[in-house]
Amino acid sequence: MLGDFRYHNPTKLYFGRGAIVHLREELSNYGKKIQLIYGGGSVKKNGIYDQVVSILRECGKEIVEDGGVMPNPTTEKLAEGIKIAGENGVDLLLAVGGGSVCDYAKAVAASVSCTEDPWKKYYIDQEQPTCEVLPVACVLTMVGTGSEMNGGSVITNPAEKLKIGHVFGSDVMPKFTILDPTFTYTVPKRQMVAGIYDAFNHICEQYFSGEDDNVSDYLSEGLMRSIIASSRKALADPLDYEARSNIMWAATWALNTLLSRGKDTDWEVHMLGQAVGAHTDATHGMTLAAVSLPYYRHILPYGLKKFRRFAVEVWGVKESGSDEEIALRGLEALENWMKELGLAMHISELGVTEDMIEKIADSTLVEEGGYKVLTREEIVKILRESL
Amino acid sequence: MLGDFRYHNPTKLYFGRGAIVHLREELSNYGKKIQLIYGGGSVKKNGIYDQVVSILRECGKEIVEDGGVMPNPTTEKLAEGIKIAGENGVDLLLAVGGGSVCDYAKAVAASVSCTEDPWKKYYIDQEQPTCEVLPVACVLTMVGTGSEMNGGSVITNPAEKLKIGHVFGSDVMPKFTILDPTFTYTVPKRQMVAGIYDAFNHICEQYFSGEDDNVSDYLSEGLMRSIIASSRKALADPLDYEARSNIMWAATWALNTLLSRGKDTDWEVHMLGQAVGAHTDATHGMTLAAVSLPYYRHILPYGLKKFRRFAVEVWGVKESGSDEEIALRGLEALENWMKELGLAMHISELGVTEDMIEKIADSTLVEEGGYKVLTREEIVKILRESL
Repeated sequence: MLGDFRYHNPTKLYFGRGAIVHLREELSNYGKKIQLIYGGGSVKKNGIYDQVVSILRECGKEIVEDGGVMPNPTTEKLAEGIKIAGENGVDLLLAVGGGSVCDYAKAVAASVSCTEDPWKKYYIDQEQPTCEVLPVACVLTMVGTGSEMNGGSVITNPAEKLKIGHVFGSDVMPKFTILDPTFTYTVPKRQMVAGIYDAFNHICEQYFSGEDDNVSDYLSEGLMRSIIASSRKALADPLDYEARSNIMWAATWALNTLLSRGKDTDWEVHMLGQAVGAHTDATHGMTLAAVSLPYYRHILPYGLKKFRRFAVEVWGVKESGSDEEIALRGLEALENWMKELGLAMHISELGVTEDMIEKIADSTLVEEGGYKVLTREEIVKILRESL
Repeated sequence: MLGDFRYHNPTKLYFGRGAIVHLREELSNYGKKIQLIYGGGSVKKNGIYDQVVSILRECGKEIVEDGGVMPNPTTEKLAEGIKIAGENGVDLLLAVGGGSVCDYAKAVAASVSCTEDPWKKYYIDQEQPTCEVLPVACVLTMVGTGSEMNGGSVITNPAEKLKIGHVFGSDVMPKFTILDPTFTYTVPKRQMVAGIYDAFNHICEQYFSGEDDNVSDYLSEGLMRSIIASSRKALADPLDYEARSNIMWAATWALNTLLSRGKDTDWEVHMLGQAVGAHTDATHGMTLAAVSLPYYRHILPYGLKKFRRFAVEVWGVKESGSDEEIALRGLEALENWMKELGLAMHISELGVTEDMIEKIADSTLVEEGGYKVLTREEIVKILRESL
């Protein structure tokens, strides 16, 4: 049954080849000082940085540089970004990059005027901002996290070995986002497939919970099938605009609050993956891939009906044999597709060794919305099976 | 291929049993004078009017009455609404009703400060507002049109026998909408199924165009399957909350601009149906139902690939035989479902007689986004086959 909910997603999107031209019209809505946020420099190599800077200059904006955001943005980097924004009195945080850069921009936006410790307030205590929030905008260069149209923000505390996500409300969501599929062309294939699996898993996290036959289940199946079809085309030819544009658009809708409306959600794969990420600094999508199958095989008996439906509706598995046999054939199909994409299928590939398991289990948060609330023993078992 | 597009849908939604309580918090964002817009009085019978008025009074608002909006709102009624809004200097247009009431509220909102003739400017010339627009909000009591989360507005000019829709931009979309599935319980079964078919056909209009395998195709198939499944439950028990809530939510997404992003759309069924409506004043969803199958059978050869996909993915038709045979079996399945719902399958049931065909053809606008741009002869042929 659809539970009660609110839906409000005011992010304005400009999608398509050359969509960056719309940055000009949007900038007229904001003041002079723009904090230009980006990652390790790939945007400088592929020319996107220059395109953005040239538009900012044409519009008479003053650029406040904030580069070097790492794939798993840390609390230290966050403190640096807050300082830059505060000292310069910036008017807009413009994130040019993938999900990490956008996640970080949101964390800065909600923290500049916040007198409390943002790590504690937003990530540990999961509170909402009680201070003024700076506007954020995004030019997306990597697909997967959905950060471009949601309030999500994941930050890593290296000292505490914790990587935690927070979902901010619509006031922290990007005011506008530029989605140009060609801006993702230079992403290495390994990052491309990690992003594809991240998006796919966002749908799984929202799908594998509850027993209802609600609208979200049908939309999720459609989005999953779309991603599977386009991923094969993008793998064969990463410059296939049709495939890359469909993946970009599906990834946005995979995690922009629509699918979760009115239903339970799980997120335990993300909790396991984020714990692996906190201990290895591995690529987010790869950590999710490496723990997914052991987790799904473990919880399958508790959500048999949904896993059976997943097999039939997403993978076209024939409805012969027992429910469990059908459901397992669905997971086999998932596994084959993941191998086809070249995803990490074991956490050992990401640098995890046997002796790290207990500590990763310590860092794994337990979610309560899925088919089975994991015990400590189950977490350890799943991590061992993921090795 | 996904074409370039913008997406911006800022309507805030409150969904669920008892969601009307959120009207109170939203009202604090607007001034004192509220134009209360409703239809023929059913909201007075079922108690929704009293609930709304009581909240408005508690919030110290001054109510400006504007009832009597007809199922096909006319240019005359629009003039009346504009006069009421202008003379009273209202701060918010609160539409309590179905799509017609909401469509009308948007037309009033965009016309109060407009010095030109709104019928000519918005409906004949399809221009966007160049004047100040009043805020609109909606309490939905009938499902189908999607008007609660889009800029669509259909107005009828009885003198010219024209019923034309206009799609306003995000500034005219409802600021907020209350979606309580129980508010639709007292809608007569005939109106309920007409609304279900209206929503379903909105998806068809966006689905039957283009040859691509894009995200919208997959989302459309998911929404159609969800509506088919829930419609059968709602038909068996109109008080089935799960079914009614899923139908309400799917209908909102069937026409809130998502499905049409980056692709062509058709809308010829609506053009035929609206012409029938302009000459008969029949229920909108029923006019669509009565012309759909003759239209789809006529254009099937031009969009064979998509009609085949529709058969397989939406109706589970087995993939044996020629593409045309498979595609036709899909339309048979659609026809059977429509009969199961008790929809009007012939325009003669709606009061159309043989001698009216030519005049209805005169009122039928021709769309260019579908698989076949209709000639006058084809329009007449389809209308005759719909008799």
